[in-house]
Amino acid sequence: MSTYNTFLHGGDYNPEQWLHSPEILEKDIEYMKMANINEVTLGVFAWSVLEPEDEVYNFDWMEQIINRLHENNIKVMLATPSAARPKWLADKYEEVLRVESNRQRNLFGGRHNHCYTSPQYRRKVRDINVRLSKKFGNHPAVIAWHISNELSGECHCPLCQEAFRNWLKDKYKTIDALNEAWATTFWSHVYNDFSQVESPSTIGESGLHGLNLDWKRFVTDQTVDFVKAEKEAILEGGSNLPMIINMMYDYGGLNYFKFKDVVDIASWDSYPRWHKEDVAEIAVDTAMQHDFIRSLFKKPFLLMESCPSATNWQSVSKLKRPGLLLASSLQAVAHGSDSVQYFQIRQSRGSSEKFHGAVIDHYGKPDTRVFKEVTEIGSSLQQIEEICGSNTVSKVAIIFDLESRWAMEDAQGPRNKGLYYRETVMKIYKGLRKLGLNVDVINSEQSINEYDIVYVPMLYMFRDGFEQKARSYVEQGGNLVLSYWSGIVNETDLCYLGGTPYGLMDVFGLRSTEIDGLDDGEYNHGVSTENTIWNPSKIYTCEHLCDLVHITTATPILVYNEDFYKGYPVLTANSFGKGNAYYICADFEQEFYDDFCEYLVKKHNVPVEFSNIPKGIQVNTRETEDDVYVFIQNFNKEAVEMNLPLDNYSVLYGEKNQRIGSLETIVLKRKK
Amino acid sequence: MSTYNTFLHGGDYNPEQWLHSPEILEKDIEYMKMANINEVTLGVFAWSVLEPEDEVYNFDWMEQIINRLHENNIKVMLATPSAARPKWLADKYEEVLRVESNRQRNLFGGRHNHCYTSPQYRRKVRDINVRLSKKFGNHPAVIAWHISNELSGECHCPLCQEAFRNWLKDKYKTIDALNEAWATTFWSHVYNDFSQVESPSTIGESGLHGLNLDWKRFVTDQTVDFVKAEKEAILEGGSNLPMIINMMYDYGGLNYFKFKDVVDIASWDSYPRWHKEDVAEIAVDTAMQHDFIRSLFKKPFLLMESCPSATNWQSVSKLKRPGLLLASSLQAVAHGSDSVQYFQIRQSRGSSEKFHGAVIDHYGKPDTRVFKEVTEIGSSLQQIEEICGSNTVSKVAIIFDLESRWAMEDAQGPRNKGLYYRETVMKIYKGLRKLGLNVDVINSEQSINEYDIVYVPMLYMFRDGFEQKARSYVEQGGNLVLSYWSGIVNETDLCYLGGTPYGLMDVFGLRSTEIDGLDDGEYNHGVSTENTIWNPSKIYTCEHLCDLVHITTATPILVYNEDFYKGYPVLTANSFGKGNAYYICADFEQEFYDDFCEYLVKKHNVPVEFSNIPKGIQVNTRETEDDVYVFIQNFNKEAVEMNLPLDNYSVLYGEKNQRIGSLETIVLKRKK
Amino acid sequence: MSTYNTFLHGGDYNPEQWLHSPEILEKDIEYMKMANINEVTLGVFAWSVLEPEDEVYNFDWMEQIINRLHENNIKVMLATPSAARPKWLADKYEEVLRVESNRQRNLFGGRHNHCYTSPQYRRKVRDINVRLSKKFGNHPAVIAWHISNELSGECHCPLCQEAFRNWLKDKYKTIDALNEAWATTFWSHVYNDFSQVESPSTIGESGLHGLNLDWKRFVTDQTVDFVKAEKEAILEGGSNLPMIINMMYDYGGLNYFKFKDVVDIASWDSYPRWHKEDVAEIAVDTAMQHDFIRSLFKKPFLLMESCPSATNWQSVSKLKRPGLLLASSLQAVAHGSDSVQYFQIRQSRGSSEKFHGAVIDHYGKPDTRVFKEVTEIGSSLQQIEEICGSNTVSKVAIIFDLESRWAMEDAQGPRNKGLYYRETVMKIYKGLRKLGLNVDVINSEQSINEYDIVYVPMLYMFRDGFEQKARSYVEQGGNLVLSYWSGIVNETDLCYLGGTPYGLMDVFGLRSTEIDGLDDGEYNHGVSTENTIWNPSKIYTCEHLCDLVHITTATPILVYNEDFYKGYPVLTANSFGKGNAYYICADFEQEFYDDFCEYLVKKHNVPVEFSNIPKGIQVNTRETEDDVYVFIQNFNKEAVEMNLPLDNYSVLYGEKNQRIGSLETIVLKRKK
Repeated sequence: MSTYNTFLHGGDYNPEQWLHSPEILEKDIEYMKMANINEVTLGVFAWSVLEPEDEVYNFDWMEQIINRLHENNIKVMLATPSAARPKWLADKYEEVLRVESNRQRNLFGGRHNHCYTSPQYRRKVRDINVRLSKKFGNHPAVIAWHISNELSGECHCPLCQEAFRNWLKDKYKTIDALNEAWATTFWSHVYNDFSQVESPSTIGESGLHGLNLDWKRFVTDQTVDFVKAEKEAILEGGSNLPMIINMMYDYGGLNYFKFKDVVDIASWDSYPRWHKEDVAEIAVDTAMQHDFIRSLFKKPFLLMESCPSATNWQSVSKLKRPGLLLASSLQAVAHGSDSVQYFQIRQSRGSSEKFHGAVIDHYGKPDTRVFKEVTEIGSSLQQIEEICGSNTVSKVAIIFDLESRWAMEDAQGPRNKGLYYRETVMKIYKGLRKLGLNVDVINSEQSINEYDIVYVPMLYMFRDGFEQKARSYVEQGGNLVLSYWSGIVNETDLCYLGGTPYGLMDVFGLRSTEIDGLDDGEYNHGVSTENTIWNPSKIYTCEHLCDLVHITTATPILVYNEDFYKGYPVLTANSFGKGNAYYICADFEQEFYDDFCEYLVKKHNVPVEFSNIPKGIQVNTRETEDDVYVFIQNFNKEAVEMNLPLDNYSVLYGEKNQRIGSLETIVLKRKK
Repeated sequence: MSTYNTFLHGGDYNPEQWLHSPEILEKDIEYMKMANINEVTLGVFAWSVLEPEDEVYNFDWMEQIINRLHENNIKVMLATPSAARPKWLADKYEEVLRVESNRQRNLFGGRHNHCYTSPQYRRKVRDINVRLSKKFGNHPAVIAWHISNELSGECHCPLCQEAFRNWLKDKYKTIDALNEAWATTFWSHVYNDFSQVESPSTIGESGLHGLNLDWKRFVTDQTVDFVKAEKEAILEGGSNLPMIINMMYDYGGLNYFKFKDVVDIASWDSYPRWHKEDVAEIAVDTAMQHDFIRSLFKKPFLLMESCPSATNWQSVSKLKRPGLLLASSLQAVAHGSDSVQYFQIRQSRGSSEKFHGAVIDHYGKPDTRVFKEVTEIGSSLQQIEEICGSNTVSKVAIIFDLESRWAMEDAQGPRNKGLYYRETVMKIYKGLRKLGLNVDVINSEQSINEYDIVYVPMLYMFRDGFEQKARSYVEQGGNLVLSYWSGIVNETDLCYLGGTPYGLMDVFGLRSTEIDGLDDGEYNHGVSTENTIWNPSKIYTCEHLCDLVHITTATPILVYNEDFYKGYPVLTANSFGKGNAYYICADFEQEFYDDFCEYLVKKHNVPVEFSNIPKGIQVNTRETEDDVYVFIQNFNKEAVEMNLPLDNYSVLYGEKNQRIGSLETIVLKRKK
Repeated sequence: MSTYNTFLHGGDYNPEQWLHSPEILEKDIEYMKMANINEVTLGVFAWSVLEPEDEVYNFDWMEQIINRLHENNIKVMLATPSAARPKWLADKYEEVLRVESNRQRNLFGGRHNHCYTSPQYRRKVRDINVRLSKKFGNHPAVIAWHISNELSGECHCPLCQEAFRNWLKDKYKTIDALNEAWATTFWSHVYNDFSQVESPSTIGESGLHGLNLDWKRFVTDQTVDFVKAEKEAILEGGSNLPMIINMMYDYGGLNYFKFKDVVDIASWDSYPRWHKEDVAEIAVDTAMQHDFIRSLFKKPFLLMESCPSATNWQSVSKLKRPGLLLASSLQAVAHGSDSVQYFQIRQSRGSSEKFHGAVIDHYGKPDTRVFKEVTEIGSSLQQIEEICGSNTVSKVAIIFDLESRWAMEDAQGPRNKGLYYRETVMKIYKGLRKLGLNVDVINSEQSINEYDIVYVPMLYMFRDGFEQKARSYVEQGGNLVLSYWSGIVNETDLCYLGGTPYGLMDVFGLRSTEIDGLDDGEYNHGVSTENTIWNPSKIYTCEHLCDLVHITTATPILVYNEDFYKGYPVLTANSFGKGNAYYICADFEQEFYDDFCEYLVKKHNVPVEFSNIPKGIQVNTRETEDDVYVFIQNFNKEAVEMNLPLDNYSVLYGEKNQRIGSLETIVLKRKK
């Protein structure tokens, strides 16, 4: 069920840049209505206009704008202004500016340049949030709080050092526990007391992995705490509207899963590098991020920002080809978004994003290619409005775990020039998506029992109890696929002793003995054995990492074909309890994952919507209690023939035929 | 008319390095005379010998040397020593050392490591300049002041911050005007007061384009002011000789045009990467810089430094092939230089430039290949002495504007990985030079009415009134060629609203609607339409940037051949008033510019000296009231046949035949 | 004669990481004995466990471990703990932390992060060393002191600045002498007083070559002084055991030759990038480093560290292929090592080296591939025990000089993008090694009279008197091969005046006039002249640098084939006194060195063990008073046929046949 009953169509709007040009503000409203826009996000980066001097507030201009929007039935997501502070604030309270890991304090500048710990910053943010909440928090046009903006970064100031030490004390209780957890006897780095701990630094400690890992966790926790404080101020001001933060593509600085108890709706800002690579490739990459965001809460999300035209910050700013904006907007909806929002409505005249695409550009009139396509999107959303709020059900999941990634990429190990973790996750994702399956992309703390198959590639770190969760899942009939470089370390990056994958050697019927790093351009191959359960005739190339396993009860399906480990298993299967445990030893090419995913989906009877989906076609479903909606999108350059069993479906959107044009979208509907 | 009646032949001479070896100083004079040297530049970097301790001056050694030079008819350009300060000065007055943009003050070291604002530094420079002026400013051997050396760099110290704020106050008067000019509402960076402004910083503000641009302007103005202060000290000391600064190749740190009211003669230090690429290519690149320097004042300039042999600071130091030094020296003269000067006469024994080529090397005797070639140059200059002081007349010009370049390259826009501005200017320059035309390379503030054709490639920023100057030029019969990404922003980098190219849409009969960035290796093509005025059969490749224009009155000459904008115009022509306005939409290959320049030159009857100039042959003219001198130089590896109409000319230099050897120079003369 | 009568087999052991797991410590002893390990290196990085708080010492655990090792006949090299200081020490005495060249003091972290000058650090190191010496210095298990660990780095703190100034005062006596030596008049950098001198800095002086060079010398001397202080503390504690430092591969930060009067045995840590390139190539590269280390003292050395499996810090960690560990261990012995030692016995559970290979890995049991190979090495060393302590005799030497390299690579000269010094040394080394010759790799201060041929490639800096040593060597019948870019500067990097190679122009019968830099991908060739002493039919490619010499008495053997110096000599020979002086003008390809080395070895009757050694086979000899031991090792991927004159030899190790398997080692023995 959607929070807003209708798809939101709109985006970031910065009238504070045009207060001296009332004729432009007037045109904006006119053009928004023309473009079927029903929402704007207001107040991001408006602090210096809302509070031009310390404790001098000026909310009048905003009130007028919200009233005008309301008169025109345009809803407002209201931002808290904490993402960029005014100059006077930085000048008056030096502690609000961030300190880098080299312990140098930044000057004023940029966006995310504040300390999340600073009491002064928290006080000033609280003060303005309470006032905004009181003033606008119950305005009928206002429908949500957009807290800060694209939260990111970290601060190493003395206040953060102290907060970090307290965080560690809470976690470890005694310094001995910390020393053991971080293996500080190595290189004689034993701490006598918590007060000795300092955050990692480019000019100091950088190789103590336990410290690095806990620091990253602290940064997430401190940012969560900051958001909580923002939220409390809004509640104090009397507003109970949903709270949202906008997340970013593959952002490694924060563990977004930790925000699940603080915000109400997941959302993200999508800026794919369309046309920089093949559109179909970019589409599937973007799809995985949509699924990752949706899987955080396992419910509909919002596409908070996207670019109506070219972005301005990529190395080359390619124009979106005709139809691409529509297709990518509907793709978000296909994956579970209840909105299509842009950055930005009106293009800025100056400063660093003045060439970022906008609904209304510097030319300033609606007779542009972009404006027309935006208008069409608004109209399309109206056509499929009944889908708004519907759910996404997935029977397969991939674990893509940020904490493990932090640890894995920080560790110096078998391949410092690149482990290809995300790429490996993506290869599995692609293999599943080619079958038209919805896929959940989850982290290792989430539940897995609802899935028919769970893929666990390269899960270097097993959080406490993960091995029990996995074991129990297989015992009770689950199908688990694990790969090389898994179960190596515990939560504080200490190596498990006694053999790996930790706690699961019997489940998989093998032990990993050594792992070989292959240089760029080096390859091995997996070939099938005579007596295996799955006997493909193909030879699959693998690269980067080759795990050498000693098998006990496992059956080898594929074996290596070269090097001194020729004949060693490279893919194995093992029955355990009521389920099955598969182990992949090396970084295989895409074709392996395509074939292996198809094999497993068939073998374990995972339901699919269609069979034989053409290359480059994306299929998604959303469902209500009674109905299933099927999105079919063609991201190929050319039209594609696709044999749809149209008798079973009605057509909700698009043309009912067996030929799908390039960038065309069709939405079908069937009863459950 | 030349300032000195004779070509100067000489260069930097550092006797202060050899004061303990009088026999070497004696040999120097003997060898200079042997090599036809008639000038040396003295005192660059001699401060620590001229003033070994604070207020302890020792000018005696210099006096002796100047006297000895005078006895031997060798003239002296006397340097002010400000380009490198003594250690004692830096130790005594810390403020003289530069502060980097990260706000860290440098230690003593290097060359240009001083604050141009520092009152202490200005006082010390003034004190020694006054004394040098008094002592040597009217010495009969001394013919000019060489102020400082290769001025460059910037300082971010508190004194400079204060000076910058005052500069801004003078410019904007009110902080509101500054806020509007810089669009500071973006990201909430509004200033309440001038005192809040800080210079751009790697650890602070770096993306506020208006700030970045004004900072660069301030750096130029502050450097100009420093040079003025040096000059005043010299005048105070009683010397009225010409003042010169030596400029550098394609140096982006200073807008040299701003020095036109301070110095008397333009000069530069030419260090082409000879033999690193094809010699003919390097020659034309060097030619453009000669023309840029000459166009600053539109009168003869000086080649202040050049290397007699290999430089020592390039990645690979290639020896100059036999004949190259002579050819490149005469090329400078062909483009308007009244001197050939070297760095350096006597090679240093130690420190960082000890392997930089010199007239006299460590071996120390004149029986070297280099010494002989230097001697021949001196002799050649004597043969063509009547050319000294003559002028260069150009009927075509290219605008190559540094302030626009600063803004364009700082802006985040359609192609952050490279806009190829200089390369585009160069392609036009080459197209014109292949026709044997003298070319002025000017900035957008200079007058354009004297030219038959003016090329304005990628003039991103239109300075106030430029659009009127351009419009009036065309109205009155001028031929203007504008290209994509022009007229986008005003002087403070605010985007023009209402359509671009700003103020000239009617002149060109079109509006630019969108611009597409092409990645490296992506291409489009221009093909001719049926009904165009110029109908080439060739297809021209274009890349990097593709402007999509909507035409009103313009005629398309070429159209795009690929992508969704296939058929859109890529070259247009428009009659306006008595003139013509051409618009180029994309970054075309050289061949396009060759053909298009030839077409325009013929169409608009621009006079040329010769037709059918062979590839790799450079033709230049200089002229007096009565005579025209034609330089013909072959920069090919091989000799070239060239059909010269020798009946109309006398031969002033070189051999009179139709075959020009590799690196050979011929100078012809005709009556006007 | 060996110091220890038996080959040492063992390595770094860190029981302080496992004090809470006595069962693991017990297993360690059991496994060491199983693996034929007879030595461990103890206490490296144990400071924070030995002295957990200031002046609170805890040596009990170490005593128990040493006693247990002794009971099991395992010897101990005892480390001083200075390579990594405890956190409490850094917190209490801030001066012990290093200051970088940008003058920022490091925070605590890493390993080598201490000031070698700091009196506080020296006092704390002295205190613990004295105590360790008293406690363990005469324990029967303890056989040597391992001082600090992999000494490296430099500090720019005020204490070091002062020490540097005193060092300069000692060296130059007067500031005038320093100014002259460093050519400080260049860029006006004259010093008035020693107190003005500061170390080179990234934010200050970086281009004053004399300063840079003396700073590097000071860093070596200060590190030597630190080691001396460590040694004195041990002697004061009453222990007279041998003192050792472990050196590193091609480490440019310290002139290891300066440690010859401080330490008793040379040793190094060998971590070749096995399998990253062809094994045979890596083997010869490693061989040169073995020979460099052995040549420091010209007596047997120790292989102090090597990795039993893959390292963890390379860009890709490749597993050692079966047999490689054995072959590389015996290679060290072949070149003069009396030990095979590993880092590490037991793998660390955490921190930055947790994935570095170990004898006992995280799995923790002996049924691993690595453990078995280590065991075999122990057994092999026992088989060849009689070789322990024998000498290496070389009749050829190559000068590979670090001080000259420092100066050459710092100077801005003919090829700043790469001079290929080490590669050139390596090409000569390979040419000689293919003939099966032992090779000494010495520095220019060592004696040369004992060699039949001495190669002196690119000796840019001639130390005082080197030209006399070289001249006298040739005069008395020696054969000297010098190459381009030699004899250019004196000890303080001042260019020699009057012609180069300095002082040897008559010896070589030529003068270098100019040197041309060739860009990557540019080549010239050497072709033979008609009337030369050696007249190869081949044409040899050369690149990078081409010296143009003017010959007087020398005979050209090869001449250039291209460019304006076609026909100029590129290889010359000159008789001088009783000897011969050869001069190579350009950077020739390997084949030239192969042919030229073979020619010279035959011509000058240098004795070889075998003729016609197959490619990829390494031959070494060690000898006692009566016997010669010949090591033959096959580093090819495939087995090789080799016709050994086995009648003259007995087989000490390996199989006696004419076919040598890949990675196989054979040791023969003959009477002298």
